[in-house]
This record gives sequence, C-alpha cells and structure tokens, in this order.
Amino acid sequence: MPDTTVPPKPRGRLFFANPGPTNIPDSVLRAIDRPSVDFMDEAFIALFENCVTRLKKVLNSSGHVFMYAASGHGAWEASLVNLFSPGDRLLMLESGYFSESWTEMARKFGLVVETVPADWRRGAQADAVKAALAADTGHAIKAVCTVHNETSTGVTLPVKEIRAALDQTRHPALLLSDTISSLASLPYDMDAWGIDLTVGGSQKGLMLPTGMSFTVVSEKAMAAHKVARLPRHYLDWSVMLGRRHKSFVGTVPTQMFNGLSESLRLLEEEGMEAVFARHRRLATAVRAAVRVWSANDGPQLFCTDPSRYSDSVTAILMPEGKDAEAVRRAALGRYNVSLGGGLGKLGGRVFRIGHLGDLNEPMILGTLAAVEMSLRDAGIPHGKGGVAAAMESLAS
Amino acid sequence: MPDTTVPPKPRGRLFFANPGPTNIPDSVLRAIDRPSVDFMDEAFIALFENCVTRLKKVLNSSGHVFMYAASGHGAWEASLVNLFSPGDRLLMLESGYFSESWTEMARKFGLVVETVPADWRRGAQADAVKAALAADTGHAIKAVCTVHNETSTGVTLPVKEIRAALDQTRHPALLLSDTISSLASLPYDMDAWGIDLTVGGSQKGLMLPTGMSFTVVSEKAMAAHKVARLPRHYLDWSVMLGRRHKSFVGTVPTQMFNGLSESLRLLEEEGMEAVFARHRRLATAVRAAVRVWSANDGPQLFCTDPSRYSDSVTAILMPEGKDAEAVRRAALGRYNVSLGGGLGKLGGRVFRIGHLGDLNEPMILGTLAAVEMSLRDAGIPHGKGGVAAAMESLAS
Amino acid sequence: MPDTTVPPKPRGRLFFANPGPTNIPDSVLRAIDRPSVDFMDEAFIALFENCVTRLKKVLNSSGHVFMYAASGHGAWEASLVNLFSPGDRLLMLESGYFSESWTEMARKFGLVVETVPADWRRGAQADAVKAALAADTGHAIKAVCTVHNETSTGVTLPVKEIRAALDQTRHPALLLSDTISSLASLPYDMDAWGIDLTVGGSQKGLMLPTGMSFTVVSEKAMAAHKVARLPRHYLDWSVMLGRRHKSFVGTVPTQMFNGLSESLRLLEEEGMEAVFARHRRLATAVRAAVRVWSANDGPQLFCTDPSRYSDSVTAILMPEGKDAEAVRRAALGRYNVSLGGGLGKLGGRVFRIGHLGDLNEPMILGTLAAVEMSLRDAGIPHGKGGVAAAMESLAS
Amino acid sequence: MPDTTVPPKPRGRLFFANPGPTNIPDSVLRAIDRPSVDFMDEAFIALFENCVTRLKKVLNSSGHVFMYAASGHGAWEASLVNLFSPGDRLLMLESGYFSESWTEMARKFGLVVETVPADWRRGAQADAVKAALAADTGHAIKAVCTVHNETSTGVTLPVKEIRAALDQTRHPALLLSDTISSLASLPYDMDAWGIDLTVGGSQKGLMLPTGMSFTVVSEKAMAAHKVARLPRHYLDWSVMLGRRHKSFVGTVPTQMFNGLSESLRLLEEEGMEAVFARHRRLATAVRAAVRVWSANDGPQLFCTDPSRYSDSVTAILMPEGKDAEAVRRAALGRYNVSLGGGLGKLGGRVFRIGHLGDLNEPMILGTLAAVEMSLRDAGIPHGKGGVAAAMESLAS
Repeated sequence: MPDTTVPPKPRGRLFFANPGPTNIPDSVLRAIDRPSVDFMDEAFIALFENCVTRLKKVLNSSGHVFMYAASGHGAWEASLVNLFSPGDRLLMLESGYFSESWTEMARKFGLVVETVPADWRRGAQADAVKAALAADTGHAIKAVCTVHNETSTGVTLPVKEIRAALDQTRHPALLLSDTISSLASLPYDMDAWGIDLTVGGSQKGLMLPTGMSFTVVSEKAMAAHKVARLPRHYLDWSVMLGRRHKSFVGTVPTQMFNGLSESLRLLEEEGMEAVFARHRRLATAVRAAVRVWSANDGPQLFCTDPSRYSDSVTAILMPEGKDAEAVRRAALGRYNVSLGGGLGKLGGRVFRIGHLGDLNEPMILGTLAAVEMSLRDAGIPHGKGGVAAAMESLAS
Repeated sequence: MPDTTVPPKPRGRLFFANPGPTNIPDSVLRAIDRPSVDFMDEAFIALFENCVTRLKKVLNSSGHVFMYAASGHGAWEASLVNLFSPGDRLLMLESGYFSESWTEMARKFGLVVETVPADWRRGAQADAVKAALAADTGHAIKAVCTVHNETSTGVTLPVKEIRAALDQTRHPALLLSDTISSLASLPYDMDAWGIDLTVGGSQKGLMLPTGMSFTVVSEKAMAAHKVARLPRHYLDWSVMLGRRHKSFVGTVPTQMFNGLSESLRLLEEEGMEAVFARHRRLATAVRAAVRVWSANDGPQLFCTDPSRYSDSVTAILMPEGKDAEAVRRAALGRYNVSLGGGLGKLGGRVFRIGHLGDLNEPMILGTLAAVEMSLRDAGIPHGKGGVAAAMESLAS
Repeated sequence: MPDTTVPPKPRGRLFFANPGPTNIPDSVLRAIDRPSVDFMDEAFIALFENCVTRLKKVLNSSGHVFMYAASGHGAWEASLVNLFSPGDRLLMLESGYFSESWTEMARKFGLVVETVPADWRRGAQADAVKAALAADTGHAIKAVCTVHNETSTGVTLPVKEIRAALDQTRHPALLLSDTISSLASLPYDMDAWGIDLTVGGSQKGLMLPTGMSFTVVSEKAMAAHKVARLPRHYLDWSVMLGRRHKSFVGTVPTQMFNGLSESLRLLEEEGMEAVFARHRRLATAVRAAVRVWSANDGPQLFCTDPSRYSDSVTAILMPEGKDAEAVRRAALGRYNVSLGGGLGKLGGRVFRIGHLGDLNEPMILGTLAAVEMSLRDAGIPHGKGGVAAAMESLAS
Repeated sequence: MPDTTVPPKPRGRLFFANPGPTNIPDSVLRAIDRPSVDFMDEAFIALFENCVTRLKKVLNSSGHVFMYAASGHGAWEASLVNLFSPGDRLLMLESGYFSESWTEMARKFGLVVETVPADWRRGAQADAVKAALAADTGHAIKAVCTVHNETSTGVTLPVKEIRAALDQTRHPALLLSDTISSLASLPYDMDAWGIDLTVGGSQKGLMLPTGMSFTVVSEKAMAAHKVARLPRHYLDWSVMLGRRHKSFVGTVPTQMFNGLSESLRLLEEEGMEAVFARHRRLATAVRAAVRVWSANDGPQLFCTDPSRYSDSVTAILMPEGKDAEAVRRAALGRYNVSLGGGLGKLGGRVFRIGHLGDLNEPMILGTLAAVEMSLRDAGIPHGKGGVAAAMESLAS
C-alpha cells in the first residue's frame, strides 16, 4: 500500500482543481501585486467605477452594485440584513450544503425559512417551488432563494424556471440568486431572468483571490431595503449610498481592483460566449471521464439529472464503503493535484473537481489523469480509460 | 499660480504617507502574489496556526484570535455582535472620527452608547472615564470602548490608564480597544494592560493589503459572548469555534497568510522594541518639521497634548480659512506624495501624514520636503526649514 | 478540417514543454522580482558567494566558477577564448545541432576542429573517440568537446566513457562538457568524472530566466588558460580574477541571484537524487507514450540507443512526409502547449518535448494528452493510447 | 561616535541612488515576472519587433539594432569585434573610468588606441579631438570613440561637437558613442548627430534589470562590418542577420522584452521631452545641494565645466583626506540609501548620486537629506542646508 510511505514532495505546479477558490491567471496576480494607493484618490475612483460598469455587463444587469471586503458568505449576509426584518419568511430551494448554510444564516437573523426539499443529486424542482408559492396565498413569502450553481453537488438550478414559477403564480416575492460558483462561468442574464438580487464573489469565475464579494440589486429589491429592519452596519447599503464609492464601509481593498480590471479584460478579450463554451467543453470532458470510471462499481457522477449538470464543478460519488479522502490524499500527496472534498453530509462520500476560471485542455486532462492514477493508488475499483474518453470528448 | 496648469504626470515611486493603508514591503507583496491553495489543506493550516501564534506575541496576548475576511470595520462589528445584546450599554471614549463611527455602528445594533466627551485635540481624559464609571453604580455599562490610536486626529489614548480607572472603581465592564492604527507600531501589552478585546486589521502596522481583520478576545469576554444575543453569522465566534481554523465563516483568504507570515518575519527580525523606537524616532522628526511650519500662522500640530502625540500618524491643522485639500492636491499632483485628508468634521481643516509600517528616514524626509513645497505651491503661510528641523531631530 | 478556422484564443496556463528555456517555479520568479541593489554591497556579495558554493555542489565540483551575463552560447565562447590559441586543435564529438554550433563557433576563432562523426540518432561512440585520440600520437588535440545532453536530439552522451577513452589512451587533452540541458536534471559528477570544464546556463535545470551562464574550470584547465592567446575581454577569466566577484566583466545581474538562491533551495530541499529520479520517471513515461504513437507508422523516438535516452528532452521523429510544425501549431494554437521544433537539418522532421525543471506528473500527462490530440488534429497517423501508457508507466 | 555601534537594520524602501543599475518601476518588474515563452513563437516575435521599433524612436535612429544577452560591456565588445580588424586605430576621447575601460578592451583585441587626453573633471575637449583628426592625414583612425555620459565622473560629452570636428576635418572615421548612462535620460539624436554606432544597456534609463544590451548601427558602420576581421561569434552581427530576430546568438531572454515593452510605454506616456526635462530638473536640484555642502571646505561637484554637468549622475569630490566610503557606509547602514562609489583612481575620493530612471522629487530629496545626514555622521565638514537649496531649486 503506497499510503504508508511518505510520498516524495511533489514538484512542479500545483493543479488546483478545487472548486473554490480557483486558478488565478498570472497577469491578474501580478496586477494585484502593487503598492497601496488612496482609495479616495480620483484615479482609483475612476478605476473602481470602470470595474463596476464592466462587472454589471458580465451579469447582464442594470442593478445597483454593493461591494464588500468579505467573502461570499458576507455577501449572503448582506442580502439578508439589507432586505428583511425579523420574522420575514423566505422560501429556500434545497440544493445542497450551501442552501443549508444560507438557511442556517437566515435563521440566525430571526427569519423564517421554508424549504423546498430536494434530493441533493437533482436539487429542488420548479414544480415544487410553484406549488409552495401557490400555497402562499397571503404572500407571506418575501423572497425565493436559489443557489444558481450548488458547489457542493455540481448541480445547476434553472433560475429562469424559478422566475417562471413566480410569474405563473403572480407571487410578488423577490428572487435571490447565489452565483458564487457560476459567475462568469455559466450563462447568466440577471435583468432578463428577472432576478432581484445576485450574490457573487471574487474567488471563482472572476479569477481573483478570496476576500471581496458583492450583491447586485434590482429596483424592486432596493424598495424592499427601505423598509428592512434587521440591524446592520458593515454591510449596510444605506450607509454605502452615502459614501463616495456607494460600496464598502471602511477601507477599500484597492489591490483587488487592479486584479478585477485585469480579469474583466481577460473575460472581455475571450468573449463571454466563448468563456461559457469553454467551460461547457471542459465540463463535458470531465463527465466523459467519470462515466468511464463508473464501470465496475466505480465512482459515478453525483448529479443524476443531465439537464442540471454543472459546467463549473463536478461532484463524484464514491462507491459504497470507499473513502473519498483517500483519493484526495493520493492526488495531492503524489501528484500535486488539489481536489475538493465532500461538504456536510457528503463528507468522505464525494470528491469534487472544479473546472472553472482560468482553465484549458491540458490542465483538465492532467488533472483527470492524476485522478485516475489516484483511484488506482487508493485501491478504488474503477473503469480504466477515463482520460482517453475525455480526450475523445474534447476532440469531437 | 501653478494650480491652474495641468501638472506633469508624476514619475517615480508614489510616496504613500496616507495613514491607511500603509506601505507594503516588496517581500510581503511578493509573498501574497501566489496561486490559490486549499484552505483545508494541512500545509495551509500549519501556516495559519503559526501566524496566529506569532500574531498573539506581537500583541502580548494569550487570548482567542478570531479572524475575518473583512476590513477593520468588520472586526468592530464582530466585537459588538459577539459580546452584546440589544439594549446593552457601552461607554465610548470620544477621540475623533473613529470613536464616532464606532458609536454610530453600536447604535445601529440597538446598543445604548454613553460618551465620555472630549476635545478631539486631546481625546477623552481618564478622570472623566473614572467619573462615568463611578457614577454607574448599577454596573449597567457592559464595556468601555477606546480607540487606542485615533487615526483621524493623531492622538494616542492611554489605554493603561483607562484600565486603572476600571480597577479603581471596581467596575466589571469589559475593556475594548481598537488598535487599527497602533498595532505593531506602538507598544501594546494586551494581557498586562487588562484588555478584554483588541480590534486589529491587516492594512497598517502589519503592512498588508486591506481585507483581513481580527479580534483577540480574553476569557472574560468569551464568557460575555456566551450570553450575547445580537444576531450574527458571518462574524459569529461560536460558528467559528466549530470550524477547522476557529476563524472565518466561508472561504479563507489564503494569500493573505503568505503575506502575514512574511510581515511577521520582518517584525521579528527587526524586534518589536526596535519597531516601536523607529516609529517614535520618525514621528518625532515629523513633529519637529510641523513645529517649524507653524511659525507665521502656519499649519500646526492638531494634537495639543504632547503626552498623547501619536507615533504612527500626525494630523496637521490648517490656518483658519486655508484648505487642506489644496495641500493634498499639490502633494499628489506635483510630487507623487499621497497625504491623508481630514475626516468628518475635520474635512478640509486638517491633512494627515501617516508614518507607520515599512518606513525609514529618507522616505519620511522626502515626504516632509514634498509637503513643505506643497505648502508653498498652495500659497499656505508657513515657517521655512521644516525638513532641516526633521533632519536635526533624526541626527540627535 | 479544423486548421482552416482561427482557433479560439487559448486560456489557462501555457504548458511550456519546449526544452529551452523551461518552467520557472513561482517562488523563483517572485524572488527575481525585486528592486535593484548595489552589486558591490557586502550583502549582495555574501549572497553571490553563497550561490557559487551551492552551485558547485550541484555539479559535484571543486573547480573555479566564472559567471557571465550571457546565454549559454556566451559560456561556450568563454570556454574557447579562455583556453585556446589560434590554430589549436579540438576533437568535437558529433551529437547534433549543438555540437555543430560549437564547431562553427570554434572555427570562427581560428581553431581547428576534428569531428568524431556520428549518426545523430545515437551520437558519437566512445570507441571512435578512443581511436581518434590514439591516432593523435603527437597530442595535437588540446581538448575533447562533448555535449553531455544534446538538446536537439534527446541523446545523452556518456561523458564518463569519454574520460575513460582519454585515460586509456593516456591523452593529455582537456575534457570539455556542455551541460546546458542536463545541469541539475541528470546525474553529473564533474570531479569524479575528470571533467576539465563544464558549461552551464540559467534557463534549464536551474529553472531561471535566460541570461546568465557560467563555466566551472579545473586546475588543469586554469593552467591552459594561462597560455591561451585568443583575444577576449568581456569573457576573460583573468580580468575576472582581478575583480571582487571573480566573475562578470561589467555590471552583475543581481536579480538573477535572488532567483538562483531560491532555485538552489528548491533543489536542495528535494535532494539531487530525487530530482534525477523524478526526471527519469517522467521521461520514461514520455517514451512510453511515444512508443504507442509509433504504431501504424506514427511518430517515433528519434534516439535509437536506449542507453542514451535523454531524461530531460525527447525528440520525436515524424513519419516520412509529415510536417512536425503542423503538430506544434495545433498544440500551441488549440491547447496552449508549446513544443520544441526541429533544429538545423531536423527542421520540420522532429518535434521535441522538454521534460526538465519544475515538472510533475499532471504537467507531463496534460502535455502528452495535448500532443496526442494534436497528432489527430494535424492528421498524423499514430497509435492511440499514448497517455494511458504514460500513466501505466508512472504508476508502476 | 555612532560608527562603532552596529546600526539598526534599516527598514523601509532602499533608496537606490547608485548610478547603475537604477530604479525599476513596479509595473516593469511585474511585467518581467512571467513564465517562459518560446522565443520563436510568432506572438513573441511580434513583441520583439515592436520593441525594436520603439527603441529606435527613443534614440531617433533609423539604424540596425543588434541585441545581446550581455551587460553593457558586452555591447562595447560587440562594437569592436564587429567593426575592426587587428591593428586598426581608434581615437578614444578620455573622459574617465569608462573611456579607460573601453581602451583596455580595445587593446586586448589588438587595436591601436590613441587617446585624446583630458582632465577627468571636464573630459576631452572638441578642439583637441579636431587637432588629432587633422593630424591624421592618412586617415589611419578608423573610429572616434566617445562616452556620451561618463558615469564615473558625471560629465556629459558634447557628441554633436565631436561630429562637427569630424566634419570640419573631413575625416571618414566612424563615430562611436556609449550611451549606457544617458540613454532615455538625456537628449540624443543618433541620425541627426551623425553617430555611426550607439552602445546602450537595459539597466539605466530603460529602467530594466541588468543583462541585456544592444548596439544601433548606421549603414556606414554596416559597411565597415563587412570587412572587419576580428574573430567573434556570440556577438557577431553577420550570424545574427541570418537568424529570425536579427539579434541574439542563442536563446533570447524573453522576459526582458515584457519589461522593455512596459518601460517604453512609460517613456512614451511621459514623452521623451518631459523625461529629459525631469532629469534636468532633478539634477539641477542635486547640484544646488552639493554647492551648499561645498562651503567650509566641504565636498564639491567633481565636474568643473557647467556646460558638461551630467543630468543623470553627479559625482561629488571629497575634501582632501576624507574618505568617500565612510559617507557611503553611513548612508547605506543608517538610512538605507545606496550611493555610488568612486571608480578606478577615484576610489575613495568621490561618491556618486545617480539620478536617472524612475525618479521624482521626494525620492531625490529623501536621498539628499540622507546624504547630508551621512556627511554629518561621518564627520565630513560641509555647509548645511543642501536639502533646502534643492527644494528651492525645484520650486523655482
């Protein structure tokens, strides 16, 4: 068993196939690597405003942008404390670990969360959402909360269909959408899809380090903010509206904007359609590999609904009784490949491959090759030839 | 009047004499400039824990460290939401813009703030604090809040004397101390001074970019946390205690720790006593220059109590009717020197020189020279020879 | 045919599988990314001397090190102009493009070059060298010149056997060895192997940018230098011996030494034996892939002597009538993988995979996968399954 | 005496006031800090050719550019070995250490050097040059060699007047000009001034690290090259003309071109006239300070001809019996300011302030302040108030 020996210290580049954060292009890292400037200086404000304008284009949104020196969880919290009052009711679409976390957070703030339950391998169904909305004849539900792309399961929810459910039931609830792991990776059309609030972070499709997040807010949500009574300050939009950047309470993380401007430039240069197509192409190849591995009672795709396969992250379910952590340890210790682990109740049962951000064919094929070797090293039964299938997929 | 012409685009290095953020050493910036890693990876956790241990040494503290992906305002908010319940009473020592901000924040969370009022040019007096505590025979005051070094005024408060006021009145209130602009710049002895909670950030004496902050918490404050009922999640210590790093809700900003480890190494190499002495030496030189400028009704030191001169930031009060912003514009536009402006009610009336972090004699003398030329360019009356006085101060 | 469309701009990291220069670790690039310092400053001189000492250990040499702000060709030229006089005779072992280049250079300086001819797919044989030396009864041959690892062909010459040929014929010629593409990648024992001069550069196994090179010189070669009459100055050892660093005529490239110190640290941390083993392991996998591709009249290993397979670069011979450049274009344009082309008379007939420096399994497997897809894209007949064979090789 | 104690380790940024290399802007360092690319790749070749075109504009030249992986001494050597044959005669204008070095080098290659002798504090006079040329009725002199800006003495030679001397004597000699420390800092008009060969390097006005240099060559000099018989290869223009880049024998230092493109962008953005004016303004301030120091038998300007003051470097002559090294040690050890030392026969007798490249007012004023304090620390008599005079100079 190779596990008992100390592996040689891996050399060469770390393959970061963990779905969060993600690979950061050199030009973005180098742009961030600059001395401090005054965040009230006109030159910086011009850069800031330019970034905000371009970021809205990525989301196809005309909303208000509020940015936070915080990770994505901070932006979630901002969405709650700025929109709601104690006792307000939310309809949460179960999707996985992150819909659970958002629920836990909402309850901490005294909100009442009604869940549309779901099999994590598929995520909540639009019909069930529609039924829940139809049942709420008194319009007690203030908002419907969706995780657009559930990072823990590799399932993408059809936010557009959720909008349709709201429209069809003529329900006035706000529609909130967490795009942490879909932003700038999967198609997203905030205005056209009728989304009232989008939560996004720096560390995935924007290809930046962790530490900045934001919400984009529709006019309808701004109206809700006016009457929201949850206490808040660091994340308070009203405080922000009185400040120069209309974002950030306190010091602005200026270096991040050097990086953001460069990552937006890269996205613009490639073109968003090409960015999405690239993610789809690489994700399809990953799934082709997993399907091969799944032979002989091997690991299989966690998501069971092909229409909801995520193009930014794939969760892979281990055969019964086999530990996903053994695969991750082998991949990291022997091949310098960092895979994501299972979150919450999926701990040990799945491992995840992030395939978003600054990624190309040889990066994903190198990763898949290392995973296939790690399955072997860890003694996990699996079909051979996953990499060849991925190559076949990419070539077609 | 030179102001009417477009200045030549300044070349050479920006002199960042703005008190927040501050100069970042090249080795720290380069350490941050690294690809993403898994924050749950053992190698990262070892780095994290090592940094926490060393950070506590800088503060001379044995407390619990909770870290946030947030700026300093986030750490303030963490101190409030984790320690208090709605209606709790705080005693806030007025010092300037930042004690006002902290007050504003506390009130947003339904806390009752009693202020020890003060002349901003001196800050709250220990006697007045003592009197307020003695008057609170029912011990309604849950905490005394101090800004150790008021960044907006350049006044350092004697936290040790505040502790004495608590001891002498046998008042059980917690003692909270904001060290944003004193951390790793001015002497600080958290345990020995009996401080229950210290608020610190990344972007000043720790010589890092903005975006990470922390609180260090005594056992007494941890006990208070157990009964605190303000809603919270992103900043919740109890949530953190259940997680691997005992810090951060959500993704950990791993790059920051590469930088923190390097900045701690620099501090350790120089030695904290030497770091403090260097700040004192450079601050003394700045004040020597300002005293010369103050002749002929020129700008003067804003702080009027020599025992409270800040060794990390100096605020300079403009002559009546003269605009501080004109000086700042000249310094930035003509000499590539970024000075701090007046905050809140001091807007336009003071400018500020930050002299903390990675700073040495020629940096401060170059800055002072540019300020002296900017005073001239902006038509502000002033005594000549400030730089010579600073050199004299440094040589003695 | 996909070739006729403009390929999408490749995203993600460039896979640099070109044998020169090579992949540079982030920590090395970041170490180089520092402001200028005075090369006569004591702190720099200490760094310089430390690097020289450690570099000699990598070569197992006790010789004199002379360093140049120059690429490897500059170090070759230094070896000639410092050791010889017009009309001196050299015995050059033919190995490929680089032995030809060295020959061309020597003739420019008026040296007489006698070649031990060879099939480029094997390189000169020790017996032929011995015969040439035995025939030189008058000891007109001043030096035997070998390219330890011929970068153009992927053939490693047995320098130790060449030494034996000198010893067996009791020939007093110097033994010169070019280690540009073997340094710090393949085992090398300068003193024990009786090598009189080693030529090395920064840009391959030392994992640095191009621009610095060096020679390490035995006492015997130093004696030859004393009587050498070729004109020289920029590369003149005698000039260098009179200077502070005993290296460099003119300004010293200080940033390079920040990087060299870090790259030596990485080598030391891994251990040279582990470094060599890693190169062997990865090279073996590459060859396993090529053997599979060679089926169906596909591309084949250029080197035909298994005992001389290079563990740092593999040259791959195209099937008759097929253009290697089409493969390279597909790999770069579609998959962001940079392969080496054929040099000199091998132009268009071979492509080369560099597998040296900061490299690991997923990097090489991602590269091989991209090459296999590029063969298909370019319409080159080949056996399928090269990547699988490489994985098999690595797993065993 | 402070000298006997170990100084505290200086913190803050090193002030690099050493005339070679010079300050490198962050954006240039970050541009260089990139992975390797294939120097034969079309994208790189486009970058290379773009840089060459823009570099020629900086020099106002239409000549051929040949670039070397070498420091400036390598470019000097290239100028000699490519233009001359053994026994050729050069007329060298004495200016200081570097004209001596060039002479030494030429003699190593068997060239006959006739010197126009000069007081180093003024440099060779045009009249003397004219006389020497007029005396050479047989036109044995093949080239006149000038150091445009003598880095060791801070004296700029009027190359245009030297051209006039050639024209007036109708002498056909080539005119060679070393611009190492004037390039992109002082006005230079290669074509209009009738210069046949310009030697330049990366590490001064181009604000790059040491390690790349170049010659720009007129058609007349190209014709001379055709008959030149000195042996050469690494620096051989004819070899280069047969290669893809028409520059470099061997591997191209690709990272340098990322930096060069950025440094040219900075120069273009500022505008060359503004660049020259800035150097003149800062140099005038430095000289104003030195004049004040020269009171009381203090240090004085080494250059005694105001029309030849260098605007990129100032050499300062110590009072009789005082050691310049003591000043340099104090400046570096106590204030983190790196000054240049005396070269050759000026060792210990002068120190030098480099004021070229990425430099602004506070950088030069901080430097001058540190020098003035170092004079005091080292016990050197001097007039006080040098910094104030420099400020006065800059303000006017």
